[in-house]
Amino acid sequence: MVGEGSLVLKQAAATKPRKRKQGRPPLIADAKNRILDEAAILFARNGYDNGSISEVAQRVGVTKAAIFHYYPSKQELYDALIVRTLSGLIESVGRDLKGTESPEAELRTFMLSHARYFEANYWSFVCMLIGFGGMEDPSLRSDAFRLRNEYEGMLRSIISRGIGAGVFADEDVSATGRAVLSMLNWMARWYNVDGSRSAADFALDYYNLIYKGLRRQ
Amino acid sequence: MVGEGSLVLKQAAATKPRKRKQGRPPLIADAKNRILDEAAILFARNGYDNGSISEVAQRVGVTKAAIFHYYPSKQELYDALIVRTLSGLIESVGRDLKGTESPEAELRTFMLSHARYFEANYWSFVCMLIGFGGMEDPSLRSDAFRLRNEYEGMLRSIISRGIGAGVFADEDVSATGRAVLSMLNWMARWYNVDGSRSAADFALDYYNLIYKGLRRQ
Repeated sequence: MVGEGSLVLKQAAATKPRKRKQGRPPLIADAKNRILDEAAILFARNGYDNGSISEVAQRVGVTKAAIFHYYPSKQELYDALIVRTLSGLIESVGRDLKGTESPEAELRTFMLSHARYFEANYWSFVCMLIGFGGMEDPSLRSDAFRLRNEYEGMLRSIISRGIGAGVFADEDVSATGRAVLSMLNWMARWYNVDGSRSAADFALDYYNLIYKGLRRQ
Repeated sequence: MVGEGSLVLKQAAATKPRKRKQGRPPLIADAKNRILDEAAILFARNGYDNGSISEVAQRVGVTKAAIFHYYPSKQELYDALIVRTLSGLIESVGRDLKGTESPEAELRTFMLSHARYFEANYWSFVCMLIGFGGMEDPSLRSDAFRLRNEYEGMLRSIISRGIGAGVFADEDVSATGRAVLSMLNWMARWYNVDGSRSAADFALDYYNLIYKGLRRQ
C-alpha cells in the first residue's frame, strides 16, 4: 500500500522530521488518485457513513491534514470519486465505441466496455453504486449529474440509432436503456472479482439476451 | 406511529406505572412485525451499521429491553427481517403463479408479482438489497440462504419449462434468471414510490423486452 518517490509517510515524518515551509502542501505522488483509491475501498467495504477521513489518511499513510489539503470535506472527497469514476467510464466506453459500425456492434461494445471498466475500477464502482449508507444518497453535485446524464444519453442514442436504422424493434428507448444499465449496475452487488468469469463474459450473456429482444422480427 | 390495544408505550409506562410480574414479556400488538417494519425503514435510510436498537425502540415507542426480548441482537433482528421479506415474496409470487398456464404467462406473472411485492414492502426490500453498509454483507444465515435459493429456483424452473416446451429459445437458464433478477432488484436503487408509474409498470416493460429475447424465432 505504501508508494515511493516524494511520498511523505506519517511514520517517516515522525522519526525523521524535516523542516517545511509552513502551509506548504505535503508531497504525495499522484496524491489525489491514491486518496480516492483508498477512500473507495473504505467506503465500499464499510459504507460512506462509517468511513472517516482519519482512516483514509491511515490507509494512504499520510496525516489527516494532508487529505484535507486536497479534499476539504468527506462529501467533497466522495463527489470527486464519483466524478472520476463517471468521467473515466465515459472516456473508456467512448474510446471503445470509436470504429464500431452498426448499432448492434455499438450496443455490444457499450455493454462489454462498461463491464471491463467496472472490473478495472471495482471499488470505485461499488462505492458509487452500493457502498454508501442506504437511501440517504450523498446528493450528487452538478458535475456528477451532468456526467451521469451524458453516459445514459450515450446509451439511449445507440438504441435510438438502432431503431432508426430498422435494426432494433421499436421498443421504448428509456425502458431499454434502463434494462441494460440495471443488469450492468447490479453486478456491483454480486460480481466476484476472484471468480472464473470476467464481468465482460456476463455482460455478453446479457447482450445476447437483450439483442434478441431488440432485433426486429 | 403509535398503535393502540395492548401496546405498552414507553411514555405511558413512565406516567402510569403498572405492576408487572418480573420477567414477563412486554405486550406489543403484532410486536415482531412492527419492530421489523421500523427497523427496515431505519436500516434502509441510514444503513445497517448506523441503525441502533435504541432508535428502533424509539420508533416503535417501546424500551430497548422490549426489542431485545424479541431479537437478542441487531444481527438477529436483521436476519429476521430478511427471512420475513424473502418468505413473504415466495408466498406472494407463488400464490400469483397458481393458475397461470404457459411459461410466458408464468414469467410475466413472476416479474409483475415480484414488482408488486417489492412496492408493497419497499423499505424491507431496500434494506435487504441496498441499505446495509456496503460489501461487508451481514452474512445471511442458513434460513435466508435457503429462501433465496428457493426463490431463484422458482424463476429458473419457469425458464427451463419454457425452453423445454419450445416457447423460449435455448438460452442459458442461469444467465437469463440473473438478467431478470438484476432488472427487478436494481429497482430498489432508483424506484420512486411517489412517482406516477408503479413498479409493476416498469416490470412489464422489462418482461416485454426479455420475452422477445427468449421467444424462439
